[in-house]
Amino acid sequence: MEVTRKNYKDCLNTVYSAIEEADFLAIDGEFSGISDGPNVSALTNGLDTPEERYTKLKKHSMDFLLFQFGLCTFKYDQAKSKYITKPFNFYIFPKPFNRTSPDIKFICQSSSIDFLASQGFDFNKVFCHGIPYLNQEEEAQLREQTEERRNQHANGVGTPSFISPSSSKGSSHVPEEHKDFINKVVECCLKPCLCSDGLAWFPKGLHVETVETEKKERYIQISKVDEEERKRREQQKLEKEQEELNDAVGFSRVIHAISKSGKLVVGHNMLLDVMHTIHQFYCPLPEDIQDFKEVTMCVFPRLLDTKLMASTQPFKELITNTSLAELEKQLKESPFKSPQVETAEGFPSYDTAQEQLHEAGYDAYITGLCFIAMANYLGSFLTPPKAYISARSKLIEPFFNKLFLMRIIDIPYLNITGPDLQPKRDHVLYVTFPKEWKTSDLYQLFSAFGNIQVSWIDDTSAFVSLSQTDQVQIAMNTSRYAESYKIQTYAEYIQGKQQEKEKQTTKTWGEDSWVKPHYTCSTTSAFGYSRYSSDDAQITDGWSHYSYPDTTGTKKMKTDGV
Amino acid sequence: MEVTRKNYKDCLNTVYSAIEEADFLAIDGEFSGISDGPNVSALTNGLDTPEERYTKLKKHSMDFLLFQFGLCTFKYDQAKSKYITKPFNFYIFPKPFNRTSPDIKFICQSSSIDFLASQGFDFNKVFCHGIPYLNQEEEAQLREQTEERRNQHANGVGTPSFISPSSSKGSSHVPEEHKDFINKVVECCLKPCLCSDGLAWFPKGLHVETVETEKKERYIQISKVDEEERKRREQQKLEKEQEELNDAVGFSRVIHAISKSGKLVVGHNMLLDVMHTIHQFYCPLPEDIQDFKEVTMCVFPRLLDTKLMASTQPFKELITNTSLAELEKQLKESPFKSPQVETAEGFPSYDTAQEQLHEAGYDAYITGLCFIAMANYLGSFLTPPKAYISARSKLIEPFFNKLFLMRIIDIPYLNITGPDLQPKRDHVLYVTFPKEWKTSDLYQLFSAFGNIQVSWIDDTSAFVSLSQTDQVQIAMNTSRYAESYKIQTYAEYIQGKQQEKEKQTTKTWGEDSWVKPHYTCSTTSAFGYSRYSSDDAQITDGWSHYSYPDTTGTKKMKTDGV
Repeated sequence: MEVTRKNYKDCLNTVYSAIEEADFLAIDGEFSGISDGPNVSALTNGLDTPEERYTKLKKHSMDFLLFQFGLCTFKYDQAKSKYITKPFNFYIFPKPFNRTSPDIKFICQSSSIDFLASQGFDFNKVFCHGIPYLNQEEEAQLREQTEERRNQHANGVGTPSFISPSSSKGSSHVPEEHKDFINKVVECCLKPCLCSDGLAWFPKGLHVETVETEKKERYIQISKVDEEERKRREQQKLEKEQEELNDAVGFSRVIHAISKSGKLVVGHNMLLDVMHTIHQFYCPLPEDIQDFKEVTMCVFPRLLDTKLMASTQPFKELITNTSLAELEKQLKESPFKSPQVETAEGFPSYDTAQEQLHEAGYDAYITGLCFIAMANYLGSFLTPPKAYISARSKLIEPFFNKLFLMRIIDIPYLNITGPDLQPKRDHVLYVTFPKEWKTSDLYQLFSAFGNIQVSWIDDTSAFVSLSQTDQVQIAMNTSRYAESYKIQTYAEYIQGKQQEKEKQTTKTWGEDSWVKPHYTCSTTSAFGYSRYSSDDAQITDGWSHYSYPDTTGTKKMKTDGV
Repeated sequence: MEVTRKNYKDCLNTVYSAIEEADFLAIDGEFSGISDGPNVSALTNGLDTPEERYTKLKKHSMDFLLFQFGLCTFKYDQAKSKYITKPFNFYIFPKPFNRTSPDIKFICQSSSIDFLASQGFDFNKVFCHGIPYLNQEEEAQLREQTEERRNQHANGVGTPSFISPSSSKGSSHVPEEHKDFINKVVECCLKPCLCSDGLAWFPKGLHVETVETEKKERYIQISKVDEEERKRREQQKLEKEQEELNDAVGFSRVIHAISKSGKLVVGHNMLLDVMHTIHQFYCPLPEDIQDFKEVTMCVFPRLLDTKLMASTQPFKELITNTSLAELEKQLKESPFKSPQVETAEGFPSYDTAQEQLHEAGYDAYITGLCFIAMANYLGSFLTPPKAYISARSKLIEPFFNKLFLMRIIDIPYLNITGPDLQPKRDHVLYVTFPKEWKTSDLYQLFSAFGNIQVSWIDDTSAFVSLSQTDQVQIAMNTSRYAESYKIQTYAEYIQGKQQEKEKQTTKTWGEDSWVKPHYTCSTTSAFGYSRYSSDDAQITDGWSHYSYPDTTGTKKMKTDGV
């Protein structure tokens, strides 16, 4: 189902109930670009630490816009023995809410835009009809503003502050060139209603309203109404304000619903999707990767990355290409089985034969299919074998909350719920050299040490992995008096980076915005509390009873800085 | 006429001849945003110097994309006594030319995008079918690369360098993981053709070609052909390369044609249009405003800004609103006369009653109408009065090369061909203060000095104009011991900025890219020399003969830095 600003409000309840009833959700995002700095191969160095990778993606990918969000809900129908799917394809655009709301700037990368164009992407749906959104802070600010206006109103300060002639504070809103005009209006029309405290009052029989024409011209409309009509209009105005506020929060409400559902959220190579979703609809990404992990668990309490799953035992040996399109094809062949799915009534159905790749809704849909096929394959190891494995099965638990790390040689995933893997890198050297050097120069330099692997960092540095660790010391010794290049062990390199970081942390401590408590789990926030009860988590596939660990319960963000 | 990548090549000759035959050209650009920094009111401070304004626009406006370019040509038909117009509306997008070409990133500003969307702008035409472009340096690089490849070819080095097994330089292009494979190919298939110098040669009967499939998979195709067929294919390849190169230069060729025509180019409030056009299709904007003026004269030897014209005598008194839409309407009323125009055959005609504002082609069209109406009005002052004034008339010369400066109180225009106006600003104070201060605090501070005018610079500084210059010293004296705020005279402020600049210039002198000769006038460049001959410039309206000053002749850019 295509969802734009035009049909968004009509669809919202359909979206909510689809999430509510689902066994699991699949998501996918399309962005206006990938990297505003280094090219992708430099952005994804094979020897990045998870922290470095996170920092690079945060720095170079977050100024792009997530402008299409795919959500596909999967609900298992016991009677039909198949999944019923509800795919949604949302178009997203930060249309400014009003004249004072933030005017978002985002970057477009030509190659990404051109690629999406070649896939038939409809940019008009994004830019002309995209659904707006606010992050939590923007939403809170807007609610506060609305609340303030209402309170002023309730206290009887129903007149615009600028016609309070004795108040110098209030008059700061009036441009100099309009003062004369306003003073004349006050004198001519409103003098009879000036009160003893200097505030201008409209008589009860007047209704005041700011009106904006289609041409964006704004004026104040004062109309004579009786008391009943005035109350009716005030009530109308309140309701309209509330509705406008909800409209402004817009697509973020879908993310809140996903978040508070606590349901398993499946994605393919989903680190960027998760980062963008949090950054755009929740809060600016934290500096520290630990904080990022905590926010992620607040927004998506249970994640599964099908690319990581496909790259892990027992799938690793069976699957040669883990790109989404290829994975989906391979999972239709033996030993896997095509999942039995049916599109829910009223939803246009996707046909995997007619690849609609890179439409977010379609990608979410086939990501879900991949998950089902792999989950069901795990059932074949049970005694007796089971053809259907639920999203709540203990069998898939090992794949939870591990997000695939692209092109890192020795760390397959970012572990959201615990410490990351720390592979030995004592065969790795950090080499700096003049910017004229090419890979061949590095091969020549290390020609005595057998096979090497080069991972470029930037123009003047690279990691060089030796095949034998015991040669590291020899390489270090021979380089001691070199002038054109410099070699450090990996341990020295990491230590240097750590010291650099500590220096910076000390410097910026006072300015660190993370000192303030920024956010709490949305499962415990204003959007309602909906803990995943352990009853729901009872597995239905014949395995012994199993309760999920309490990852969705009350959890507050770290609030005391780094 | 709508022009996209699809019909661009077919239209190019039509565009060229329209420019060639025209009496004058009108242009307009639509951008993906206006300011990526301060909001527009801070970007356009009422007391900016032309240099400050240029620097701000360069810094905060150039990362947006000029994605629609309107060109309307106007040719006077003596027999019909009317102008024949040819309007073009070009969609522009920096589609990467190949895998190694620059991957342009540009910013979008939500409010601008939303505004264009509300005007019915078609973003798919930009992003899916926009015409690519290269600036001069990119074009030169690409020509060089192509030339190099051809020379290699002519010297018989027709084989890909990587199958030169003994050359360590050549092998730097081969990724490690492919080396084995390539060595095997060389061994199996090409061994018979290895020459004594270690270079691999294909026998004459083989034609080698890199082929890219629709799915962007690339492979090398080796086919057996006879000598004649081989030559035919080589020739085909050369022609294809040349065509691809021209395609890559794309829309820039239209700008080159405008440039070398030397024709009068009319725009409305055109400073940003001119800056974007130069920046995108010619070269990155220079740091120094003097250099900018020189480049501008190279690219657009004769400019006229209708907003500046409408804001100048004798129009100033007659025209209350100089926005393009309002101007066009007012110029239909007495004492002005609606210009007689007719759309050329084969061009869809615009109807001014059906305002298509903010489509660049339409805006260019009505800008041209405004110019004609105002030019003709000048004819009413002649004895005897003339109803038609040519674009070459001496009467319009005073308006040449003066670009309207938005919202600067006392400098109406940027003078492209000479020094800028330097109004006295000795009644102006530069005030710095805590960021909590509001306009009202400034009014209070200066309450003793009568009427003041505040021009905000940023959160903590503003210009305050006093109504009487003799009060400046009093204000300075009273502020001497103030701690929360600081006052400087305007002269002191400018002096401070100048010193700051000199410091920076000294620092960066060595790195200044302007030390190198960057560009020469396109009228003398590879695109051909086409000096506006003084014959063409003879006026046809009964006034005495008049020749244009030689501004389009040979002119080289300043090449010795700042």
